[in-house]
Amino acid sequence: MQTQTLERMESNVRTYSRSFPVVFTKAQGARLTDENGREYIDFLAGAGTLNYGHNNPHLKKAMVDYLATDGVVHGLDMWTSAKREYFEALEQLILKPRNLDYKIQLPGPTGTNAVEAAIRLARKVKNRHNIVTFTNGFHGVTMGALATTGNRKFRENTGGIPMTGASFVPYDGYMGEATNTLDYFEKLLGDKSGGLDLPAAVIVETVQGEGGINVSGLEWLKRLESICHAHDILLIVDDIQAGCGRTGKFFSFEHAGIVPDMVTNSKSLSGFGLPFSHVLMRPELDQWQPGQYNGTFRGFNLAMITAAAAIKQYWSDDALEKDVQRKGKIIEERFQKLAAMLTEAGMPASERGRGMMRGIDVQTGDVADKITGKAFEHGLIIETSGHDGEVVKCLCPLTISDEDLQQGLDILEASVKAVTGKQAAATA
Amino acid sequence: MQTQTLERMESNVRTYSRSFPVVFTKAQGARLTDENGREYIDFLAGAGTLNYGHNNPHLKKAMVDYLATDGVVHGLDMWTSAKREYFEALEQLILKPRNLDYKIQLPGPTGTNAVEAAIRLARKVKNRHNIVTFTNGFHGVTMGALATTGNRKFRENTGGIPMTGASFVPYDGYMGEATNTLDYFEKLLGDKSGGLDLPAAVIVETVQGEGGINVSGLEWLKRLESICHAHDILLIVDDIQAGCGRTGKFFSFEHAGIVPDMVTNSKSLSGFGLPFSHVLMRPELDQWQPGQYNGTFRGFNLAMITAAAAIKQYWSDDALEKDVQRKGKIIEERFQKLAAMLTEAGMPASERGRGMMRGIDVQTGDVADKITGKAFEHGLIIETSGHDGEVVKCLCPLTISDEDLQQGLDILEASVKAVTGKQAAATA
Amino acid sequence: MQTQTLERMESNVRTYSRSFPVVFTKAQGARLTDENGREYIDFLAGAGTLNYGHNNPHLKKAMVDYLATDGVVHGLDMWTSAKREYFEALEQLILKPRNLDYKIQLPGPTGTNAVEAAIRLARKVKNRHNIVTFTNGFHGVTMGALATTGNRKFRENTGGIPMTGASFVPYDGYMGEATNTLDYFEKLLGDKSGGLDLPAAVIVETVQGEGGINVSGLEWLKRLESICHAHDILLIVDDIQAGCGRTGKFFSFEHAGIVPDMVTNSKSLSGFGLPFSHVLMRPELDQWQPGQYNGTFRGFNLAMITAAAAIKQYWSDDALEKDVQRKGKIIEERFQKLAAMLTEAGMPASERGRGMMRGIDVQTGDVADKITGKAFEHGLIIETSGHDGEVVKCLCPLTISDEDLQQGLDILEASVKAVTGKQAAATA
Amino acid sequence: MQTQTLERMESNVRTYSRSFPVVFTKAQGARLTDENGREYIDFLAGAGTLNYGHNNPHLKKAMVDYLATDGVVHGLDMWTSAKREYFEALEQLILKPRNLDYKIQLPGPTGTNAVEAAIRLARKVKNRHNIVTFTNGFHGVTMGALATTGNRKFRENTGGIPMTGASFVPYDGYMGEATNTLDYFEKLLGDKSGGLDLPAAVIVETVQGEGGINVSGLEWLKRLESICHAHDILLIVDDIQAGCGRTGKFFSFEHAGIVPDMVTNSKSLSGFGLPFSHVLMRPELDQWQPGQYNGTFRGFNLAMITAAAAIKQYWSDDALEKDVQRKGKIIEERFQKLAAMLTEAGMPASERGRGMMRGIDVQTGDVADKITGKAFEHGLIIETSGHDGEVVKCLCPLTISDEDLQQGLDILEASVKAVTGKQAAATA
Repeated sequence: MQTQTLERMESNVRTYSRSFPVVFTKAQGARLTDENGREYIDFLAGAGTLNYGHNNPHLKKAMVDYLATDGVVHGLDMWTSAKREYFEALEQLILKPRNLDYKIQLPGPTGTNAVEAAIRLARKVKNRHNIVTFTNGFHGVTMGALATTGNRKFRENTGGIPMTGASFVPYDGYMGEATNTLDYFEKLLGDKSGGLDLPAAVIVETVQGEGGINVSGLEWLKRLESICHAHDILLIVDDIQAGCGRTGKFFSFEHAGIVPDMVTNSKSLSGFGLPFSHVLMRPELDQWQPGQYNGTFRGFNLAMITAAAAIKQYWSDDALEKDVQRKGKIIEERFQKLAAMLTEAGMPASERGRGMMRGIDVQTGDVADKITGKAFEHGLIIETSGHDGEVVKCLCPLTISDEDLQQGLDILEASVKAVTGKQAAATA
Repeated sequence: MQTQTLERMESNVRTYSRSFPVVFTKAQGARLTDENGREYIDFLAGAGTLNYGHNNPHLKKAMVDYLATDGVVHGLDMWTSAKREYFEALEQLILKPRNLDYKIQLPGPTGTNAVEAAIRLARKVKNRHNIVTFTNGFHGVTMGALATTGNRKFRENTGGIPMTGASFVPYDGYMGEATNTLDYFEKLLGDKSGGLDLPAAVIVETVQGEGGINVSGLEWLKRLESICHAHDILLIVDDIQAGCGRTGKFFSFEHAGIVPDMVTNSKSLSGFGLPFSHVLMRPELDQWQPGQYNGTFRGFNLAMITAAAAIKQYWSDDALEKDVQRKGKIIEERFQKLAAMLTEAGMPASERGRGMMRGIDVQTGDVADKITGKAFEHGLIIETSGHDGEVVKCLCPLTISDEDLQQGLDILEASVKAVTGKQAAATA
Repeated sequence: MQTQTLERMESNVRTYSRSFPVVFTKAQGARLTDENGREYIDFLAGAGTLNYGHNNPHLKKAMVDYLATDGVVHGLDMWTSAKREYFEALEQLILKPRNLDYKIQLPGPTGTNAVEAAIRLARKVKNRHNIVTFTNGFHGVTMGALATTGNRKFRENTGGIPMTGASFVPYDGYMGEATNTLDYFEKLLGDKSGGLDLPAAVIVETVQGEGGINVSGLEWLKRLESICHAHDILLIVDDIQAGCGRTGKFFSFEHAGIVPDMVTNSKSLSGFGLPFSHVLMRPELDQWQPGQYNGTFRGFNLAMITAAAAIKQYWSDDALEKDVQRKGKIIEERFQKLAAMLTEAGMPASERGRGMMRGIDVQTGDVADKITGKAFEHGLIIETSGHDGEVVKCLCPLTISDEDLQQGLDILEASVKAVTGKQAAATA
Repeated sequence: MQTQTLERMESNVRTYSRSFPVVFTKAQGARLTDENGREYIDFLAGAGTLNYGHNNPHLKKAMVDYLATDGVVHGLDMWTSAKREYFEALEQLILKPRNLDYKIQLPGPTGTNAVEAAIRLARKVKNRHNIVTFTNGFHGVTMGALATTGNRKFRENTGGIPMTGASFVPYDGYMGEATNTLDYFEKLLGDKSGGLDLPAAVIVETVQGEGGINVSGLEWLKRLESICHAHDILLIVDDIQAGCGRTGKFFSFEHAGIVPDMVTNSKSLSGFGLPFSHVLMRPELDQWQPGQYNGTFRGFNLAMITAAAAIKQYWSDDALEKDVQRKGKIIEERFQKLAAMLTEAGMPASERGRGMMRGIDVQTGDVADKITGKAFEHGLIIETSGHDGEVVKCLCPLTISDEDLQQGLDILEASVKAVTGKQAAATA
């Protein structure tokens, strides 16, 4: 494979080409193929971007058909037939059946753009600067979103400039099982000298993806919603990674029965890997002045075409939901088994997740890297997350075939065995 | 046209659908078609995103061919054949012929992502927080970029939170012809109590697009480069709107013969209206640690396919450059004529621009809106820019046919006549 | 009493003249006298500024003698005999006997100046922006210190501008007895995505005065010191209110046997109510460049004269220490009794404190205000603290006579009885 | 002289003891005496703090008398007879005769406290975060005030943390004689994308002391006031160094006939070198809530006693004003002569100032240091200011005797001669 130009010209910031140092040429469903023709099962799937698989034929057809008619590809935020199609699909098949009444903002096409727009609107509406976010939260790396993202890797080495306008509160479970972290949050809110400036909004992931597949309890989420209501704080669910069916519902917060004031989606929203995001907001919060937030690629029409097609294809009935729950169960059981295997081998591990957003916490990035490294050797692409990269994270396409799923899990099991064996050998 | 769903569901932040309240269904070259089949000449062209026209057939073919092979659409920042193709085209046809030695970072796919990445890297490299930017500069609306953007519309109503880490300096010409604004900048740099924290970088547009087609002098740019070198400050040219041939050269800074330390491109970089951006940096500045800046849609493969195709199609020789200069001249002359017409009618106006980035400053947003409103009635889509929207701005495709260009200019002239006539009548 | 001019001309920000709306003309020891000749026992004593009583004759004599020789009153930070005298007294009688090796910085003469200087130096030395502070901490209201102060009253209504560069962590006991808040702090420090930027320093009060006489445990303080050492974080003890003997030792941290990297003192440092402060720092931290921090009133000579006299008078032996412990015990017992009385009357209350820094937490500002209001009627000046003003706080002079102390406590008891009676009546 | 303890124990931040490395023991009028009995003429005078000379007998008597009656020295912000006396003197002898209607806030006793209070109130009243300040302005070094202070020495080495909430605009004359810097300011205010957030207030020194005796024109000040009125911006005159008679009027802004919305005073306000400051504000701006700004040493009673005495002694008639003008003229003429002497010797220099706030700009800190170093050898204490320390600055007591003034000027002349002679020799 010719990689010299790539190595020479691409910034050192590159990362996945270090873990998977091959050139990929083809992608279909849950499989990637490299230039040498080798196939890999893809449990990474664009870090949650390819819930419907690579080059999903339904979505590709919709896009190619649209292109064939010279449909508008780029029109800033003009009205197009593509936009109308997207809005109608979203309204009819997603919002109405869930009794959700939201208006839609199309900010720049990435998750961080959506987060920036949401927190800026929250600040405007409440006329307060502070945003409460949670330990291990990840909401993007542009400066406004970064203030709500916990990772030092992104926050440091910035000439010292501090991230402003956000306060961190411990996520569910952060202080151990004995402590409900919302007790602390509620105390801070009621404390006039606790140092917490009354926030405009709370931003939360129901399952923290980058943070290490940390799953918040449904009661915890309900109470968080109540606290927000009691203190006149907006609740923003950042559903960029956990949304679009990943946890078994279109919106991950449906499990808890809560209704956020705003929702951010991106990643799998277009369904085809096209850059796209939206912010949903309760209508009374839509206090934007025309043009008060902009961006060249807001409302990318091709993405709206595939997004509408994805909604129609997968969210007209509950087939996908049920399938995600079924496959999630399969992954859960295998992961529990692998965790037990690791624990027995002296490498304490545990499984966690919701739906098809699942991970094995192996406690150190070192062990996790060994497992995922082995997996790649065996033809499985899977990444780690968590503050030390200590969680082996599965985000395979929701539409993965049972065969590919099994094969991927088998490779992972083989990799775990290789690592525990090696470890056993090493400590012998 | 069915617009109820669009009106009901889209946030009030929408803007172009207010100026152009129709639903567009088709776009080809320099023409847009609405749902009723009416055609419009497009002098807006994605605000600089469609330099090669809507649905450029060369680029569309490249993209459709790639899709047909199930090429990788989304792969985070993995290596793909698409990325390699893009890097090779950029290196061989753009960088090498211009004696430029840059490494490439693919941040999130929008301009603001590129700006955030560039200024963050500058801060890291120089270990200083401050970024110098210019009056009327526009570099994006995420919080880091927004600090370098002058518009109050975006900076206010944010709960009071101040934009931090940037200092404004007057752009070329801001203080009138008698004053070289770099005298002031240089004085501030040398003044230990002038209040200007030594910046990590200066970020500048060679022609300010959103700011009102403000054109910096070539000597001014050269001196700016010298000042940066003398004070150990990085020079970032934000070429998001003025780049990709708009001014008659691929990079707008080529006219001045300067070599920026970093360059940001986006908008027309993909050539097809696909979200895409890159940061170019001198190799020694590439001090990123792996993964220190990320984003789900960094390195959008479809965009790299069209970007490579655009480079090959339009930058293998100097035909486009020459054509841009020729057409730019045509626009310039017509705009001068229109400006004279307006001035004679008691509405003082002047023409300015470089290459095919041109505007007529009519001094008030009110007059400009009347002209562009009239133009839309007559079938021309054209927008305004400047701090008060006082500049009628032409960003038509570089590849526009002479017929479409003439027709668009004719419509604009008719619109100006209508406005001056109306004005004459009103003042009679 | 003539108060019209005062009322008309003084800003609404005035506060104590609302609680005690009389004009004071004379002050001696623990007694204040108003213009009508009425005497009051003073349990407020300058909020910790008058540990040696009003117009302490030893200190007054030293000051008047110095003035009689035309000693230098104001000399910026020039060397004077007064400064030398202060340094010698501090070194010989305070630092050496405690095995403390500190250098002295004389910033502006108030507590907030000292805090600003200390945290700025910490940032410089560690080249990090973040300062960890604690819930209910109070460190001053200038913008740098205010970032470390929890009170919303001061942090809000500032045009939205956020306080930057500080992170709050729960103080000892904040999360209930079951939770050691340092577990949380330590977890955050070790968590690369917990959202806590590695701090340059921790700033802590061993007993929070304004925060409500919250007393940190001695083991908690020791562990805090260990955590700071382990993570290369400076430990700053803000001893502005708790220092100068208030808790029974000259420095309040002596009880815990810790050695802070920096110490801030002010309030009772001059002993005579003169504005004065210093920052003590381990010699290797003295990385200031000459003149890098300044202020017109740094090193106020009269204050150094009285400060030296106070040290010589009260810290040459352990008589005062012992007396503070003895009187502290007296106050403690009476406060426990009062707390029990209140609790029995259906107004749950508890006593807390260390040395002669003591309070009764009556849970609501309303009850506390009734008690202190009654006390003033009866001739006792005493204030409240805590986030809701719910703690009746005693800071009487350390040198108060036993008679005055008893009389003050008697008045307080009468006031409590009046309030509980009224309350009983009200609920009957 | 014994300096070991001083050298060993005092932080490296010390500065004046480097220029004047002796121990001062006595001070009277315009003379300081060191431990060896050597006398010095004092043209520094506490950097503007000792307008009435060291140990002014009138003020000392008032203070000693007050102490003799056990007057309240420290009472937080309680009402005292001292405060009433100060308010009455200020109202009757200063405000009323000048037709000024202000309320008084007593913040912490230093200049930076007053500036912090004033800008915080401005932000609250206008609900905007931005404060406009001027190049070379100095308003204190606590973080809020520091944002408005230009000196890099104070702004850098703070762990990278940027000063937020202030924007710098060029002071009168900063851009040369041809440019009125208010043209630029006015343009920025009217420019919706100029990058200047609409400020809550402008803070300005009519003569910049630390900045290098930069004197703003009276027309410039009037226009600044007009601009503020037109844009609903508060005008704060920081009269900390230039006030209290230094320029020939009690308030330096009286020359221009303007009425600031707020005024800050400190330095010579107590008249005796005691820490003291106030903020004056138009009554309708007094929107503080009780206790919303505090500080232990607000309203230092001894200072109010001397401040009232100073007002009565020196501002009951116009004798001091006239004397300041007379002596200012003497200094001006001698400084012009010295500047000419330097210029002739190849060291270009110029004189500037207003009243008795005067300097010689010798263009480099090196030359200025040589002159002031020589002066100290000859028995004159005088300092430099300006961004490079290039201005020899005279701030001798307003009450200096003609003999001392002449002697000081003679020493300065001898020093200049020594330096020009040395220079001549060196270049020969």
